Amino acid sequence: MATVKLLSDEELSAEAKAVFDDIRAVRGTDFINNFWRALAHDPALLKATWDRLKVVMAPGALDPLVKEMIYVAVSGTNGCAYCAHSHTASARAKGMTPEMYGELLAVMGMANQTNALASALQVPVDEVFKE
Amino acid sequence: MATVKLLSDEELSAEAKAVFDDIRAVRGTDFINNFWRALAHDPALLKATWDRLKVVMAPGALDPLVKEMIYVAVSGTNGCAYCAHSHTASARAKGMTPEMYGELLAVMGMANQTNALASALQVPVDEVFKE
Amino acid sequence: MATVKLLSDEELSAEAKAVFDDIRAVRGTDFINNFWRALAHDPALLKATWDRLKVVMAPGALDPLVKEMIYVAVSGTNGCAYCAHSHTASARAKGMTPEMYGELLAVMGMANQTNALASALQVPVDEVFKE
Amino acid sequence: MATVKLLSDEELSAEAKAVFDDIRAVRGTDFINNFWRALAHDPALLKATWDRLKVVMAPGALDPLVKEMIYVAVSGTNGCAYCAHSHTASARAKGMTPEMYGELLAVMGMANQTNALASALQVPVDEVFKE
Amino acid sequence: MATVKLLSDEELSAEAKAVFDDIRAVRGTDFINNFWRALAHDPALLKATWDRLKVVMAPGALDPLVKEMIYVAVSGTNGCAYCAHSHTASARAKGMTPEMYGELLAVMGMANQTNALASALQVPVDEVFKE
Amino acid sequence: MATVKLLSDEELSAEAKAVFDDIRAVRGTDFINNFWRALAHDPALLKATWDRLKVVMAPGALDPLVKEMIYVAVSGTNGCAYCAHSHTASARAKGMTPEMYGELLAVMGMANQTNALASALQVPVDEVFKE
Repeated sequence: MATVKLLSDEELSAEAKAVFDDIRAVRGTDFINNFWRALAHDPALLKATWDRLKVVMAPGALDPLVKEMIYVAVSGTNGCAYCAHSHTASARAKGMTPEMYGELLAVMGMANQTNALASALQVPVDEVFKE
Repeated sequence: MATVKLLSDEELSAEAKAVFDDIRAVRGTDFINNFWRALAHDPALLKATWDRLKVVMAPGALDPLVKEMIYVAVSGTNGCAYCAHSHTASARAKGMTPEMYGELLAVMGMANQTNALASALQVPVDEVFKE
Repeated sequence: MATVKLLSDEELSAEAKAVFDDIRAVRGTDFINNFWRALAHDPALLKATWDRLKVVMAPGALDPLVKEMIYVAVSGTNGCAYCAHSHTASARAKGMTPEMYGELLAVMGMANQTNALASALQVPVDEVFKE
Repeated sequence: MATVKLLSDEELSAEAKAVFDDIRAVRGTDFINNFWRALAHDPALLKATWDRLKVVMAPGALDPLVKEMIYVAVSGTNGCAYCAHSHTASARAKGMTPEMYGELLAVMGMANQTNALASALQVPVDEVFKE
Repeated sequence: MATVKLLSDEELSAEAKAVFDDIRAVRGTDFINNFWRALAHDPALLKATWDRLKVVMAPGALDPLVKEMIYVAVSGTNGCAYCAHSHTASARAKGMTPEMYGELLAVMGMANQTNALASALQVPVDEVFKE
Repeated sequence: MATVKLLSDEELSAEAKAVFDDIRAVRGTDFINNFWRALAHDPALLKATWDRLKVVMAPGALDPLVKEMIYVAVSGTNGCAYCAHSHTASARAKGMTPEMYGELLAVMGMANQTNALASALQVPVDEVFKE
């Protein structure tokens, strides 16, 4: 259970309703996941979050699948249960194969390991990396 | 300054020397960055870390640049100064353009924001994501 | 389920019982939340934690509601499910309105975003901030 | 040193220049701190970050000083060196006294302690907190 | 529910089956916990993780119980629910008493508190610690 | 440079002076490290932190070296530069050998790796671990 009630479509303010309409249009589905139903209590926060996410995750110099896999790696690193589930699902919907997921997990795991090692050892940054 | 002395080539044990030889061969350069010089105090840890990293970062279902960008995103999330520097340098060496870096940062930043929001709100995982 | 059995009032040691009595007196309620029932296995840890929390969260230069909102922001950042729930409830009991909660979430989300950006970019601290 | 060159005013794109102009106007000072000079390599990221920060930190249901103190607490929790420095400076500029800072640190420290305890013990959320 | 199906013994690839056989032999029990059943989708990741864990947790300069307690402290710090449960169970199986667990929690809690304080205050490292 | 001036002995309040006296007596040295000189701005926070640390790190069911190594592991995990330096120095002063440090790092690194894997995969806790 969330710290706020998840709002149904009937309980939305007009501003939140407009954001849900845009989510549905952009994603091409009627389904709205719980994250947005929780944020809907604060329409300004809902709108700012969605408007930015929409831009950030759109195709660009990186393709959407790569972006989604970066999102999964950050979410696993932060231990965000909701985000691990939702972004892994999104990555699969965008074409992530089991082999890609396995490699993503391996890289994320290794990064967390060597991050901790470098931080514990307080390794000074090599001059060559400073540019 | 690290919590251990960074070992010069002359100070290496035979086992650590063998790992440095392999790093140089695989990377095609004589340069060994400080992380390995700190780990070299414990040759078993040095060898295990390098042997695994070499495999994890090799081309596979994901290409090495994508892997390196995932590494950068995790390192920024964990606030690892050394890793942010070294893996950003590696990603650039593998072809990351300024545009790609900007998008990587945008995704990483957004993921950290929504991870915190979902965790603070304790949003329950949608049934559809549970498979 | 916790990693330890949550102790009922009947299972408390005398020292733990005394701490529960103080929690009840200070809070003006008979209800003791699960966190304390888990800590009660180690009366010294229970007592030290409660004695310090009681002082830290008392009115001072900051009012208790501001303190509780800071607690919520840290708990969301750390992804602590228990703490997000319990301190959001406490903040509401102390007067946090939905508008305040929305703004708290927005600030916490933004801070997590820019923390990750500054760490990934390894932005050097401006001279003017060093005092 | 950052992973990117900090851009001087002369090196800015027109879009980045416009954002710097707005930062200067809103803050009433010519000084632009390094964070923005690093982000300026990606004008879209710069603009989105500033535009959102400006809104989030503005007076609302919470006053700007409270918001800044929440930012400091999150930054300390995440171990972001740059952010700890810059937002502590901002909080002082907005009126944070030494007494307030001491209490903020005490709350942040306690939250990090009990977050770790609750997570290690995996304390189940009380029914009464689920609403 | 995990982001992947937990594999039963019947669903394992030959390579994953061999790892499970080794886990059972090393631990002297038929029981395989869920972590390995999730990793089994990627036999290479499963094998690398188990092979390394087996070495890292074996008796050495530190005894296995001390290692397990370090694991618990890290897991609580990271807020990993699965790891807090599984490694606390392992530590108990290796002889961790309630008194030892209480002290471990106290140290872990204190470390998280002072880590946040030192990071928020950006305390410079004493010269005497740099060696 | 810290966010506060590090106080010299001459700048201490009477209450802070008393805490420094106790640190010197307990540790049997005149040296006071920077962490306490930063906290000294808030004598109440200084005293509470020291009084608790003194108790937590004292010999008990766990010996002081084990406690110090747990502290190092948490500090590396959190990426606290100051704490990694100071507690590694303390652990050495209490007898941590290079072999013990190497194994500590290996365990800490592995824990961070598998914590991220278990969180990304959202592995459900085995029934047998719930007691």
